[in-house]
Amino acid sequence: MATRSWVPVPEGSDFPLQNLPYGVFSTSGSERRCGVAIGEHVLDLAPVLGDQSFAAPSLNGFLAAGRARWEQVRRSLTSFLSDPSHAIDVEPHLIARQDATLHLPFEVADYVDFYASEHHAINVGRMFRPDADPLTPNWKHLPIGYHGRAGTVVVSGTEVVRPCGQRKAPDAPPTYGPSQRLDIEAEVGFVVGVGSAQGTRVAVEDFREHVFGVVLLNDWSARDIQFWEGQPLGPFLGKSFATSISPWVVPLQALESALVAPPPQDPEPLGYLQTAGPTALDLALEVALNGHVISRPPFAGMYWTAPQQLAHLTVNGASLRTGDLYASGTVSGPERDQRGCLLELSWNGTDPVHLADGTSRTYLSDEDTVVIRATAPGADGVRIGFGELRGTVLPAAPGGAGA
Amino acid sequence: MATRSWVPVPEGSDFPLQNLPYGVFSTSGSERRCGVAIGEHVLDLAPVLGDQSFAAPSLNGFLAAGRARWEQVRRSLTSFLSDPSHAIDVEPHLIARQDATLHLPFEVADYVDFYASEHHAINVGRMFRPDADPLTPNWKHLPIGYHGRAGTVVVSGTEVVRPCGQRKAPDAPPTYGPSQRLDIEAEVGFVVGVGSAQGTRVAVEDFREHVFGVVLLNDWSARDIQFWEGQPLGPFLGKSFATSISPWVVPLQALESALVAPPPQDPEPLGYLQTAGPTALDLALEVALNGHVISRPPFAGMYWTAPQQLAHLTVNGASLRTGDLYASGTVSGPERDQRGCLLELSWNGTDPVHLADGTSRTYLSDEDTVVIRATAPGADGVRIGFGELRGTVLPAAPGGAGA
Repeated sequence: MATRSWVPVPEGSDFPLQNLPYGVFSTSGSERRCGVAIGEHVLDLAPVLGDQSFAAPSLNGFLAAGRARWEQVRRSLTSFLSDPSHAIDVEPHLIARQDATLHLPFEVADYVDFYASEHHAINVGRMFRPDADPLTPNWKHLPIGYHGRAGTVVVSGTEVVRPCGQRKAPDAPPTYGPSQRLDIEAEVGFVVGVGSAQGTRVAVEDFREHVFGVVLLNDWSARDIQFWEGQPLGPFLGKSFATSISPWVVPLQALESALVAPPPQDPEPLGYLQTAGPTALDLALEVALNGHVISRPPFAGMYWTAPQQLAHLTVNGASLRTGDLYASGTVSGPERDQRGCLLELSWNGTDPVHLADGTSRTYLSDEDTVVIRATAPGADGVRIGFGELRGTVLPAAPGGAGA
Repeated sequence: MATRSWVPVPEGSDFPLQNLPYGVFSTSGSERRCGVAIGEHVLDLAPVLGDQSFAAPSLNGFLAAGRARWEQVRRSLTSFLSDPSHAIDVEPHLIARQDATLHLPFEVADYVDFYASEHHAINVGRMFRPDADPLTPNWKHLPIGYHGRAGTVVVSGTEVVRPCGQRKAPDAPPTYGPSQRLDIEAEVGFVVGVGSAQGTRVAVEDFREHVFGVVLLNDWSARDIQFWEGQPLGPFLGKSFATSISPWVVPLQALESALVAPPPQDPEPLGYLQTAGPTALDLALEVALNGHVISRPPFAGMYWTAPQQLAHLTVNGASLRTGDLYASGTVSGPERDQRGCLLELSWNGTDPVHLADGTSRTYLSDEDTVVIRATAPGADGVRIGFGELRGTVLPAAPGGAGA
C-alpha cells in the first residue's frame, strides 16, 4: 500500500496518511458530523463510507462498534486516501480545515484522572509533605486515580473562566475569590469505545478491545482551591471547573510504531497489573505559554501504563461505558524543562518561569493562552501528531470577587 | 382540594396523594416509560397527561423542563387523582405495582458524593486519625465532596457483586482478593433537573430552580480497598463498583412540610454558603439488614444542607446538567443506633452488630440484604415515604480470589 496520500500533506503536518485521527466538525450552517483529518483537510465520513452513523454529532456510535469495525474503517480510509483512483469520489467530501469548526469529539461518560508520573508525584510530595516520603506507601502498588467531572470536559479552543472558590493562607481564615494559583496539567487521555458489564473486570491484555484511541488533555487546576479542600477526600472544585481535550482522537492503530517498553516496576505489581512487551507510548509532548515553549514532557517514562490503569479501574467490577475517558495524570519527566505543570515548573510559585518575551509567570494570568501539542512515531518512519490543544484564560466571572 | 385520592391508598403507605413520586417502569413485554406512584399502583403518565415525552425510558426530558412545568404537572396529577370525576379517564392507566418492573429513573450525568454529617465525619476521624482532630481544618468551612462513578449507579433491587481489589494489612505487602470489609452508607441523593452554564454559579437561593427531587442512596463501600488506596487523592475503587438509588424520585414539592431549620453553623460560613430559614429536610431514615433494623439515621441534623452543597458544587463555575446526582454523604446522628454505616456501627469491626435473629455482623456477608427506607412529613399532616432501596450482596466474581 502507498505510504503517501494523494491529498496534499505539508511537510511536518500532524496529519499524514499514517495518522487519520477522528473528530466531529461542522461547516457554516451545517450539522455536526464525524470526520477524519488528512493534511490540511477534514474528510466527511458519512458520504465517503456510505454509513449514516457517521452523520452524527459524536463519535460514540463508531466507538461502540468495536475493534473489528475500527480496523475495517481504517483500512478503507487508508485505501481511499492513498489510491489516486479513489480521488474522483473522495475529493468532493474533503473540507478545508479552516472552513471547519471542531467540536467535542465524543460524549464523555465517566472521566477518571490518574497520577502516573513518578517524577510528578515525587515533586508534589516534596513540596507538600516535606517531612515525609514524597510518595505515599500505596503509590508503587497501584495506579492512584480519582473521578473527575465529565460534564465540564470541553474541546480545545474553549475559553476557561478563572474559577472562584475558597483558599486559605496560613494562620488566617479562609477567604473567597478568584483562584490566584491557576495552573495547567499536560496529560494524555484514553477514550473507551467498548464497554464492559458491571461485576466483571477487564484484563490488561484486553486493553485494545476496549480502548479506541488517544487525546491530549489539559487538567486545569486551581492549586489554592485544591490544597484547601483536598483532604480527606481528594480534589474536587480545584479541578472540576474545566478539563480540555484535543479535537482529534488518534486511534491506537496509528500508534503501533510508538509502542515501547514501560520503565521497570519495583516492587513487582500484583498479578492483575502485570504486563509484558511494549505497552507504553513514546509520545513527545510540548507545552507552550503565550507562544513560548515552557516544557517538553516525555510520555514514555510514565510509571503506570494505560493498560494497567484500565485493568485497575475495572478490577473491582466497575463497568465501562462507551465514551469513558481516563487520563494519565500530569506528564512530567526527570528534568526541570520536562515538568507538565506550573506547580512544578515554578516550584509552587517560588521560582518563576521566564518566557522568551521577557515576561515571567508563576501561575497563569488572565488572557494567557496555553497550547499543548504532541508527536509520536507513526508507520513508515513518518511522524504523526495530535494537533493542538488550546485554551485561553478569561477573568473570573462578575461576582467572583465578593463572597 | 381533596386530601385523599379516589385510588385506594392503604394505611401507612409511602405513596399517598401528598407524595406522587416519579419513576420509570415497564410491564411484561412493554417499553420503559414514566410513571407516578399512588398507593399500590403506578400511573402511566404519557396517556394520562397526553404528553408523549413521558413515554420515554428516563425522566430526563421532564427533569429538564424546569420548575414551572414540574409544578404544573403536579397540579394536574393531584387533580386527576383526587377528583373522582377523573376516575373514568385515569383508571385504565393505573398499573398494579406488582405488575410493574421499576428501572433506573433517570440517566445519571455526573455523580458527586458529599460528607455532610458531622457525627459521621467525627467517628471516621476518631477511628483513622486517633491522634489528630477528628475533623480536618476545612470541614466546617466548606462541604467536603468528591466525584463518584455515574456509570455504576443502579436502581434498587440490583444485586451487588462483592468487589475485589487491593487491601493491605499492617506490616505486610498488599494482597489482591475480595473485599473483606464490605459496607453500606445510608444517604440521601438530590437530582438536578435544570442545568447551568459553565463559568456561572448557582446561588443557594436558586436551589429549587435546579433541583427536582430526592432519592435514597446506598453508597456501597469496600473499606479495606478504600483505606489502602485513599491517599492522597481520595476514594476510588472502594466506592466505584456500585451505588444504588431508590426507584422513586420524590419531588421537592412533596417535601415542603419536611423543611426545617438546619443546625447552627459555627464558624459562620462564607457568604456564598449562607442560607436563611428552613433549608434542611426532616427525613427519618431506617436501615435494615436481613430484615432487622440496625439504625435509624435522622437527616435533619446534617451539618451541610443540599442548597449549600449545590452552591458549593458550582461556585467554581462548574456547570450542571440534567441528571446530575449529588448525595449527602452517610447520614449519621449522635447516637449509636443512628449511625448510617457498618464502619461506625461496628466501630471498624471491633464491636459487632447483633441482629434479632441471633446472628451478628461487623461487615456484610455474601447474600446479605440491606434495605433503606425513609419517611417525611407530607402535606395535610400525612406521612410520605420513599419506598424501599434494596440490595443483596453476591459473592465475588470467579477469578476474584486469585491475582
